[in-house]
Amino acid sequence: MDIKYLLSEDKMPTAWYNIQADLSAPLPPVLHPGTGQPITPDDLAPLFPTSLIEQEVSQERWIEIPDEVQSIYRQWRPTPLYRARRLEKALDTPAKIYYKYEGVSPAGSHKPNTAVAQAYYNKQAGVKRLTTETGAGQWGSSLAFAGALFGLEVLVYMVKVSYNQKPYRRALMEAYGARVVASPSEETQAGRSILAANPHSTGSLGIAISEAVEVAASDEGSKYALGSVLNHVLLHQTVIGQEALAQMEMAGDYPDIVVGCTGGGSNFAGIAFPFLGAKLRGERDVEIIAVEPAACPSLTRGKYAYDFGDTAHLTPLVKMHTLGSTFVPEGIHAGGLRYHGMAPLVSHVVNLGLAQPRSEYQLGCFAAGLTFARVEGIIPAPEANHAVKAAIDEALKCKESGESKVILFNLCGHGHFDMQAYIDYQAGKLVDTEYSAEEVAMALAGLPVVG
Amino acid sequence: MDIKYLLSEDKMPTAWYNIQADLSAPLPPVLHPGTGQPITPDDLAPLFPTSLIEQEVSQERWIEIPDEVQSIYRQWRPTPLYRARRLEKALDTPAKIYYKYEGVSPAGSHKPNTAVAQAYYNKQAGVKRLTTETGAGQWGSSLAFAGALFGLEVLVYMVKVSYNQKPYRRALMEAYGARVVASPSEETQAGRSILAANPHSTGSLGIAISEAVEVAASDEGSKYALGSVLNHVLLHQTVIGQEALAQMEMAGDYPDIVVGCTGGGSNFAGIAFPFLGAKLRGERDVEIIAVEPAACPSLTRGKYAYDFGDTAHLTPLVKMHTLGSTFVPEGIHAGGLRYHGMAPLVSHVVNLGLAQPRSEYQLGCFAAGLTFARVEGIIPAPEANHAVKAAIDEALKCKESGESKVILFNLCGHGHFDMQAYIDYQAGKLVDTEYSAEEVAMALAGLPVVG
Repeated sequence: MDIKYLLSEDKMPTAWYNIQADLSAPLPPVLHPGTGQPITPDDLAPLFPTSLIEQEVSQERWIEIPDEVQSIYRQWRPTPLYRARRLEKALDTPAKIYYKYEGVSPAGSHKPNTAVAQAYYNKQAGVKRLTTETGAGQWGSSLAFAGALFGLEVLVYMVKVSYNQKPYRRALMEAYGARVVASPSEETQAGRSILAANPHSTGSLGIAISEAVEVAASDEGSKYALGSVLNHVLLHQTVIGQEALAQMEMAGDYPDIVVGCTGGGSNFAGIAFPFLGAKLRGERDVEIIAVEPAACPSLTRGKYAYDFGDTAHLTPLVKMHTLGSTFVPEGIHAGGLRYHGMAPLVSHVVNLGLAQPRSEYQLGCFAAGLTFARVEGIIPAPEANHAVKAAIDEALKCKESGESKVILFNLCGHGHFDMQAYIDYQAGKLVDTEYSAEEVAMALAGLPVVG
Repeated sequence: MDIKYLLSEDKMPTAWYNIQADLSAPLPPVLHPGTGQPITPDDLAPLFPTSLIEQEVSQERWIEIPDEVQSIYRQWRPTPLYRARRLEKALDTPAKIYYKYEGVSPAGSHKPNTAVAQAYYNKQAGVKRLTTETGAGQWGSSLAFAGALFGLEVLVYMVKVSYNQKPYRRALMEAYGARVVASPSEETQAGRSILAANPHSTGSLGIAISEAVEVAASDEGSKYALGSVLNHVLLHQTVIGQEALAQMEMAGDYPDIVVGCTGGGSNFAGIAFPFLGAKLRGERDVEIIAVEPAACPSLTRGKYAYDFGDTAHLTPLVKMHTLGSTFVPEGIHAGGLRYHGMAPLVSHVVNLGLAQPRSEYQLGCFAAGLTFARVEGIIPAPEANHAVKAAIDEALKCKESGESKVILFNLCGHGHFDMQAYIDYQAGKLVDTEYSAEEVAMALAGLPVVG
């Protein structure tokens, strides 16, 4: 009974897939906050090397993966794709459940797929130091890992609530040689002004981005690296879905439903875009589900509008599903999903009706994660539990209807650094967060006026 | 540039390798503590199912791996074998360094190789509950994982110092559904008598074994499972070395030196015995190095003598390198290596001159582990750092001598649950432990008189 589908290395993707080449409508432009006009590559030059800016705006369908990046990918890629037979049996469902497992990377999540690529291009461009933000620490530890491989310094602004909740992620970054600062910090203008207004701020990804961007923009040898949201980041993650396409073929199946959890959108895009591309090119139909936390419901309750990517308004304006750049989500344990906005490409795809968003409460997600752990043996990261929850729900719908759908989800990371969350869950200490319509409206009232 | 060697699943071992078939001298018998006579299978029946007792005493070279166990192994096996090219470059050594990586298992170490097998045979025998001990928690979490897959209850006595130092390993066991008790506990006669003598006892593997054995022996539905030391446990781990043999062939190399760290001896035996078998059969020569912590130096400073496996003297007498069953090693972070004795088979092999033991201090091991993490990207478990240290030392000797030896070591687990150890190390809080000759002599003075 096959449960694992492994690609041989010679079948690994040699190019990243750019969904923009297949979309019927172009992505709305990124705007300069001062002029309201589309930004130029020059506007981004202080923050990113030219090669990544080119990828950010490219309309080419395939973008070649440099040999050195492929060589490093091969340390843990291709990642396994599993048939969750034991979960199917436990649920007594006629559905077939598959999952792609990104937790085998050295940092334990999908994030190194883009961290390695970004570190490579920055090293090529002569950059000495990368600055970044991190929520739960998955991104920060991945960039610290990649920076160590390429001899780049890494400075991480870590959302304070996670800095305190997750000392072991911080320790992992430090073990790789990175410097980690709790955000908001006294080290930047952005951090100081947040602290002046609210000395007890527990931070947010939006604030941490402001700090990292400020430092990169003001220091010649430094550039900025983002772990999600941007087009080139999502691009790098498409190795996940491309491998999964080949592995589903090995399994002799094709997914009716593809599920990913969404924070900034990168692991979702990684698994979903290659399947969506096949749909857009008329090859195979597929239903795509994007699952976000009810405590940070940008896709399901936010507005599709131009907004800043950060709290201090240092970034350009991007059109995305957003709760407003001043929105600070509750300190739930799925820290990687606590971002006020959504990747413009994911927002665009949802707006075009190509993916269905839904939100889930954390208690239900942890329950799903424990069910999964006990039958499949892998304990998921709290972020990944959102995808597990939706996959289980779809499988249970099949049990009701008697349909034997094929469900594929991305298990984007293991939970070995997140055991405090499971301790708190099992001790009954976690609660579900819901925002009232008034709270959401108030958060959205601050959206910038554009045009 | 190849860095990873992956076996296809059809080349996975289908039998475990029993080194007893190839040894020139038989393993000294296990003795009944009351009679001083060799024990019979019946003596072990309260603790283990018949199939495992048969494996314990078998002299057959190959013991078939049941299909269901192979099927579960395939979730993460074959594990990758890596050429550590970046480490070689950082050390500027002409040596070739390879490592087998067991951290890709769901529990993050090599321990599930035997946990799954033991859970399978116990389930077949109608057992309802497994009791066990755990040090750092790698074994306990592996048995909890395996128990969950087979629907067995798991009760873990966890050495108190680790129970307090490593709450996240405990949480992992509980996530898998196991019950975890700090040892010494009030739940057993053995635990109560230790606590009566020393209420502040931080425990030891020897004490925890006593508790787990006592409960298993006195409860009809329960059996006992051990994570190392016993012949059948070492047997199950030989999938590591067998895979490595095939992978070294893929790489077109053969190790001059094979390195494993030793606590109870199971990961060492797993990597070393298949290579040692080839040597014993006159096929290929190889040097085998067993690395143990200076804080628990059973192979290098203990006595090769009959001793009890546990503190309360509930187990039979086995001939092994031992520091005495009352020896409580310092609370170093490599908790998995803190056992007063050594596997009888490993002791026998060392006694026959087939493997060279050495001991290493923890500070040097952590330094080696961080060097490794920053160039290879994987953060090792503190136990595995002992193997990393010896491999680096051998590679540096090659740099001195100009030799291009091939070095293979077993990276038996990742350190994602051990970040507190790295925090303490980087904060300068760890110290090296050395025992004086008098202290060792005193510990050995309590050895039982046999025959």
